Amino acid sequence: MESPDGRKRVVIVGGGFGGLNAARKLSALPLEVVLIDRRNFHLFQPLLYQVATGGLSPGDIAAPLRSILSRQKNVTVLLEEAISIDPQRRALQLSNGELGYDFLVLATGAENHYFGNDHWAAFAPSLKTIEDATAIRSRILVAFEKAENESDPEIRRQHLRFVVVGGGPTGVELAGSIGEIARDTLRGDFRRIKPEEAQVLLLEYGPRILASFEPGLSDKAVRSLIGLGVLTRTGVKVVDIEEGALTVATAAGEEKIRASTILWAAGVRASPLARQLGEALGVEVDAGGRIRVEADLSVAGAPEVFVIGDAAWCEQEGKRLPGMCPVAMQQGWYLGKAVEARLRGRKAPPFRFRDKGTMATIGRKAAVADLGFVRFGGWLAWVAWLFLHLLYLVTFRRRVIVAMQWAFQYVTFNRGARLIERRSPRV
Amino acid sequence: MESPDGRKRVVIVGGGFGGLNAARKLSALPLEVVLIDRRNFHLFQPLLYQVATGGLSPGDIAAPLRSILSRQKNVTVLLEEAISIDPQRRALQLSNGELGYDFLVLATGAENHYFGNDHWAAFAPSLKTIEDATAIRSRILVAFEKAENESDPEIRRQHLRFVVVGGGPTGVELAGSIGEIARDTLRGDFRRIKPEEAQVLLLEYGPRILASFEPGLSDKAVRSLIGLGVLTRTGVKVVDIEEGALTVATAAGEEKIRASTILWAAGVRASPLARQLGEALGVEVDAGGRIRVEADLSVAGAPEVFVIGDAAWCEQEGKRLPGMCPVAMQQGWYLGKAVEARLRGRKAPPFRFRDKGTMATIGRKAAVADLGFVRFGGWLAWVAWLFLHLLYLVTFRRRVIVAMQWAFQYVTFNRGARLIERRSPRV
Repeated sequence: MESPDGRKRVVIVGGGFGGLNAARKLSALPLEVVLIDRRNFHLFQPLLYQVATGGLSPGDIAAPLRSILSRQKNVTVLLEEAISIDPQRRALQLSNGELGYDFLVLATGAENHYFGNDHWAAFAPSLKTIEDATAIRSRILVAFEKAENESDPEIRRQHLRFVVVGGGPTGVELAGSIGEIARDTLRGDFRRIKPEEAQVLLLEYGPRILASFEPGLSDKAVRSLIGLGVLTRTGVKVVDIEEGALTVATAAGEEKIRASTILWAAGVRASPLARQLGEALGVEVDAGGRIRVEADLSVAGAPEVFVIGDAAWCEQEGKRLPGMCPVAMQQGWYLGKAVEARLRGRKAPPFRFRDKGTMATIGRKAAVADLGFVRFGGWLAWVAWLFLHLLYLVTFRRRVIVAMQWAFQYVTFNRGARLIERRSPRV
Repeated sequence: MESPDGRKRVVIVGGGFGGLNAARKLSALPLEVVLIDRRNFHLFQPLLYQVATGGLSPGDIAAPLRSILSRQKNVTVLLEEAISIDPQRRALQLSNGELGYDFLVLATGAENHYFGNDHWAAFAPSLKTIEDATAIRSRILVAFEKAENESDPEIRRQHLRFVVVGGGPTGVELAGSIGEIARDTLRGDFRRIKPEEAQVLLLEYGPRILASFEPGLSDKAVRSLIGLGVLTRTGVKVVDIEEGALTVATAAGEEKIRASTILWAAGVRASPLARQLGEALGVEVDAGGRIRVEADLSVAGAPEVFVIGDAAWCEQEGKRLPGMCPVAMQQGWYLGKAVEARLRGRKAPPFRFRDKGTMATIGRKAAVADLGFVRFGGWLAWVAWLFLHLLYLVTFRRRVIVAMQWAFQYVTFNRGARLIERRSPRV
């Protein structure tokens, strides 16, 4: 299945951190590279919560894939949806036709997971796409508007109660930002309510938030959150979610919490293509829907198929690598070497993830960072977070615009993109 | 109908240029001011076409009304829809209750008008709201994607044909920007099509485009448009629009033009509240749905009701003032004086519109300006346009961000906000 000029074709499914970096590296090889994505842009997911909380605009964190890869003339971007993989025939079923490959890179990432309660999604949206972010932004702003218009004090309190389920980095960043909106951004904007009286609850099933960090940093995060008016509750299991309320089970029994805004940040699962591939090849798939990969990120029984990022179950020293940006990026880079070796009939040395640390921000000027050799919190961690995220923003233009938006937000406490869009619930 | 502390209540309907500036001026008087809008933001309409063409993000040109008026403590912003006015009872029917007033300012602006062919809206969307802008942006970008995926050369040409109906400033700016997207922004992004081969048609019913400008400037605009690959056709009447095609009548007879993207910029009409008020008071309403106002912008028979902006039929020296930003802004400012005089039992001197000139941009570095005492085109007009628009952007933050985006766009030919959002037609 060679292209007209005899070059082999590598098809990459997904233009996230893994797929985009794979495309960049693979474009340096004598290959025909096809990058398939349902969307026309690469999304800088780590800053998505800032769109959801009105600090940034969608355009600030989304860069057109065609534009990013414009100069890589052997890369074709295809705006298409991949439906299924036929590894025997080395073909990809698209929503609009079929595409053969010599090498396949599956980088389809993860989607939200409600653990068998998909109907909760309507009452507790989660944050994965640009549309999720603008919808959540509208929901948060509409809640304050409803509170302003409400005379019943109990219902008003419900409008001013925000519950975030899930104490991972996304949940912590969301809860911290909502606290900040209430305390700083909206201060003085209303006439009947005091936005700073809003109650933000962060619920976590496990014994502590930010479980992937050191316990000391979890404690720091909890204290920073308290400063933003966010109450953290751990050991809380969500039993049911309905419109405007959720039922939780704690050591003390069941409890119903009424809140107009409930956000879900409790879990993700690999996109369905990973499972489909696993079934087609008889390769193991874990509970999170991730397909097991070999040391060089290929799949057992199909050495021309590689899986990276959140779709891959990749073990290192007996531990599964977490679904994080840096893992996906490094795996994307590695594929350049892996495919080059394969073209020469060799096998590349195994992929090694180099952990440069993890970080999470909590509002205006606090963060926690765990760089392996050093762990720190507070203002310094926040500045480090800022620089790192700017560094990884795809285009220089976006770096500058986002830096400006942050500078204004820092100085003025204001948020630029506080639009209630039409798809949102009407007041 | 006085507020608890005895101050009279002025209700302003609409937070556009007229209503917002009225709120600012009126807040200086000892009044209770209520500003009602369906949306939570003030929209800088003159730059909306830049959102539709991917140059700016919605958040760049929309500022939250609450935030703008945060320090005017006697101003309450109400996120509500006004349904009808009862001038006899001095009451406003809202979608959620009723509100009495001592003074009423109707500043509800205009909406799109298809001259009795509302079903055309589905095939030829127009540009009035933020949602219109992001939908048009998606439509334009999707057309290029479809062309890239199409093998039939005739259908591909249809995908690469863009028709803008209406040669006023909005139509000219839209057509010029699409020409620029095709020629510069997307150059090199595709592998099978050449975006610069896109055909952009600007259709005008009258004998020339930019009819409100001097004929010499219309000619300049046509030449600038040619440089961007935009073909202008005048004396063209649209007879029918269907999915992917429009039928036009010219001196030479009827003709069918097939194009995937048809945009409507041919007409607006005052929002329905103006007509309803006219009927309730027996005051004349013109063909554009605007209600006739007196010299001090009040309505005959209801001296406590003022109408400003696109909802008002306001004559000066026997000529109707056009529906333009500067008119609405100056009328908003004037209301401060008009209501103050009324509070003292007097009548204010008549409103006088001071025409500071009109401008329109055509792509990257051309514009036409008519400042009354001087008319000019080209690069100088473009720079003047740039400064004026930055000056009037509501908040300092937005001024800087927009200036940055423009600077990048000018230097790199790139556009930051090229997102195809989900609501858009799928490829």
